Order: sequence, then structure tokens, then C-alpha cells
Amino acid sequence: MKPSKISVLAPGLIGGSVALACARTFPDAALFLWSRHKESLPPIQKALPKAKTGTDLSGATGSDLVVLGAPASALGALVQNLLPHLSPRTLVTDVASVKAPVEKELAPLLQGHGRWIGSHPMAGSEESGFRAARGDLFQNATVILTPEKNTPAETVQDATLFWRTLGAKVTRLEPGEHDRQVARISHLPHAVAAALVHAAGSSGLPLAGPGYRDTTRVAAGPSALWAEILLGNRREVLAGLQELRTGLQGLETSLEKGDAAGLAKFLEEAAQIRRKLPGS
Amino acid sequence: MKPSKISVLAPGLIGGSVALACARTFPDAALFLWSRHKESLPPIQKALPKAKTGTDLSGATGSDLVVLGAPASALGALVQNLLPHLSPRTLVTDVASVKAPVEKELAPLLQGHGRWIGSHPMAGSEESGFRAARGDLFQNATVILTPEKNTPAETVQDATLFWRTLGAKVTRLEPGEHDRQVARISHLPHAVAAALVHAAGSSGLPLAGPGYRDTTRVAAGPSALWAEILLGNRREVLAGLQELRTGLQGLETSLEKGDAAGLAKFLEEAAQIRRKLPGS
Repeated sequence: MKPSKISVLAPGLIGGSVALACARTFPDAALFLWSRHKESLPPIQKALPKAKTGTDLSGATGSDLVVLGAPASALGALVQNLLPHLSPRTLVTDVASVKAPVEKELAPLLQGHGRWIGSHPMAGSEESGFRAARGDLFQNATVILTPEKNTPAETVQDATLFWRTLGAKVTRLEPGEHDRQVARISHLPHAVAAALVHAAGSSGLPLAGPGYRDTTRVAAGPSALWAEILLGNRREVLAGLQELRTGLQGLETSLEKGDAAGLAKFLEEAAQIRRKLPGS
Repeated sequence: MKPSKISVLAPGLIGGSVALACARTFPDAALFLWSRHKESLPPIQKALPKAKTGTDLSGATGSDLVVLGAPASALGALVQNLLPHLSPRTLVTDVASVKAPVEKELAPLLQGHGRWIGSHPMAGSEESGFRAARGDLFQNATVILTPEKNTPAETVQDATLFWRTLGAKVTRLEPGEHDRQVARISHLPHAVAAALVHAAGSSGLPLAGPGYRDTTRVAAGPSALWAEILLGNRREVLAGLQELRTGLQGLETSLEKGDAAGLAKFLEEAAQIRRKLPGS
């Protein structure tokens, strides 16, 4: 698909990066960015002087593609207000990191009003907001599309092509399975990084080496956003925490018993899994 | 202190990096590298063509400085065999990451035979062995010296100057306090990274983003070495795991209750601590 008009609504770090990447990749397409707050618009206009911006969703009229940058909890209301400005051919996707609840809320709303498919770009940083957006954020990033069994193949193909054109590797998962896997590969590490920072406290910070630095980096991220993400996927995050607890219990037992072989086995099994990940 | 002869015994990643850094920083000093295994010597000779190497500790005779690269559990036997080749003026230090047990074992052995002080360079990587050694490993790294109350000031000064000359920032901690803080800032993150990898498993690896990547990086490290480090400091690591468990329990309670404010507070407190660490 080669869009002639793209709208990005509520552009934060991810949505803003989509807009910057689109300006570069589709220089002939019209670009509209919407924010609920007028005061958010000037930095957007500055970064994207050729784009239109506004606080009225009617500006999205005529879009081939609408990217919803809002957090999961705000998507329902946003889409309700967006419906009058969509055409049934408009491809509509989001960038939230929890998919089953979003699917459940948006799919029925958008039925017949737009071609809906959920997206989760696995990109970002410990920063947030439009000011942290980068046009190259999706280069080699993984984007997970979460079609349901009745999502038309053409919708999946168009969304796949869109993210690939921005440089991403695209993979597909059913929304519930997405939430299960992402809880363990993304949300759990975040929760644990915060707990580690609490356990280590401030006093040892001058001693922090690369181990602490890497392991806890994500804990510096935006807490309100992450509280929402963890709560949005809480059933799976809780299940992941339970699995983590079992592992930590095994570690404690090995340490208490002085069981060097058991401890080395636990660490070696983890090392073998982790070494499967290319590029450190 | 400007050493005219430096010996590095059992050079792995850290000891090997000391030797490479010394060859660069003290080009006029004689350098001797000892390994227990003859087959370890050729790569050392190749990397350090001007150094002497050998499997006999008598090669260390006449050193101003001896750096013990062996792991904590091997240091006692190594120093026993080294004693005949030391002079009371020889500065002797190690690079092990657990200090109270090393202090307890080596200080009495070296009393009157050398000027002993423990060192812990907070540097390294997920690699190990001499082949991973780098001459610039200590540039801006933190080295913790662990003098005891009866360590002569001159010994502390000489060791401080040595590590600073290799580019490190030097700080001092009493051995027990070192172990307490390092358990939380280094050993605990390592143990938890391994538990996280176990909890996440292999199936979600294709979805891994920078969060998982950073948080679990150290879990790819050498497992036998880390089993030894964790066991060597097990009392403090267990105490740290207990503190972590309290934090995780709080997280679970917030998630179960759907307590967004409590969760955000927990994450924000962690973020504020983590943001104190300069340079991400």
C-alpha cells in the first residue's frame, strides 16, 4: 500500500516516531497529526513543518491510514470520536503494548467503519513523549501484528507492508498469545528491574558497573505509562511473576545448601537461552 | 609508585586486562605472567610479546607488584605457593569480586611476606578468559579497594595510584561492607537476570526488544564463574534476594488490587533512584 494521507493521533514516543518515519518514507503523502491539547502542537509543527496539525479529529478525514498513538485506556474514547471521520477502507491500527483488551474494545467499534488491526512496535526507550520520537526508531525493530481469525488477509498484508516500509521486522500473534508472551519478554523484565532498584537502594550506586546499569536501565522509564501497561496486562504479568518466584526459590535453595552444581546448572540453562538472542 | 616489575598470576579477563594495560602504561617495567597450565601461555605470549611467561611461580621473584587473577576459591593455595618468591615490600592485590572471605584467608598468610590489599575492579563483560581481555578495560571503571583498619596508609596509597594510572576511579570500602553493597548492586542483578530468562523461556525470544535485551544481558555470562561468585557471597546475596522478594510481593499486591497509584509510586520511586546514575 502506498498511502496518500496518513494521520497519527496522540503522537507520543511511538506515534511521533511513526510520523517522523512516514514523513521520510512517504514524502508525497499528506500527514495529519492530532493532539487533544493545543499546547502539544508547536513542537510537532516544528519537527514536521509540512504536516497539518490540529485538535479536531475531522482533520483525519480522507486518510488511507490512521495510527492511534494513545495509551490503551484512552483508545476506546478516541475511536468513538474518530468514527465519523473514517471511511470503511481506512486502515486503522494502534501502537499499544497490550493487545487482547484493546482488540476486545476496538474491533466491535470499528466494524464496518475502518479496516482495523492491532500493532505493537517493540521499540522505545526509557524516555517518553513526542520530544523523544525518532524517525529511525523502527529500523530493525520488531512489530507484532495481532490479527484475529476474521481479520481480512488484505488488512494483514497492508499493515505488514506499512511497518516493513518503515524498516521493521513484522511478526504475527493472536492478541491473547501476544499478551502472554509479551508479559514475559517485556513487562516482567520491567517490573523486576524496578524491584531490583528498590532492593539495591541508593547507597551502592557509586559502585554500579555495567551489570547493574544494563539490568536496571528500563526502571528509569516513565512510571505512569508503565503502571498502565502492567495493569493492562496484569493477569499475564502476575502469572509471569509467579514463574519468576519459582526460579528465585530454586536459586535460594541452591545458595542455602551451598549447591554449586545446582546453581551452575540454573545459570548455565539461562545462559544457553540468552545466547540464542543474536547481537548480544 | 612506578613499578619496575609487575607479575600477573592466573590472568583471565580481569588479570589479562591488567597485564595489557600495564604493558601500555608502564612500557619500561618487566612483566611476568603465570598460568598453571602450559597450554594457556601461547595466546598470552602472542598478545604480550615482550612479557615473560611461565608455569613456575619463581618467575614472579623481584616484583614490586603482584596481581592475583585467580578466582576467590583458588587464591589461598596460589598465595601459599607464592610466598617464597615475595619480598615484604611487594604490593600484592587480587581482583576477586567477593572480599571478606578473601581478606580473612589472605591477610594472615601474607602478613610479613608482602604488602597485601584487596581490589575489586567493577569491570568485565559477559565474556571470560584471557582472550576477552582488553587493555582499556579499566578506563573509567570503578575499582573498590578493601583495606582493613590495620592496612598501612602507604599500601592503600600505592594501590590507589596503581589503579588510577590504569584509568580507573578508585573507591574504598571495608571488606564486609563491600560484600553487602556488591551483593545488591552486582550479584543480585546477575541472579535475577538468570531467573528472568528462565521465566520468559525461549518461545518469546523473537519478540525480545531492548528491555529484555538489557535486563538479561549478564545472564549470558560464564555460569561456573558466577556460581562461584554468588556462593562466595551467599549470605549477602540471600539477604538481597529476601529484599527483592518483599518488593515483588508489593508489586503483586498492587497488580491484584488494580492499584494504579500504588504501582506508579513503586515504579516512580525506582525511576528516581535509577535516574541518579549518570550516563544512562
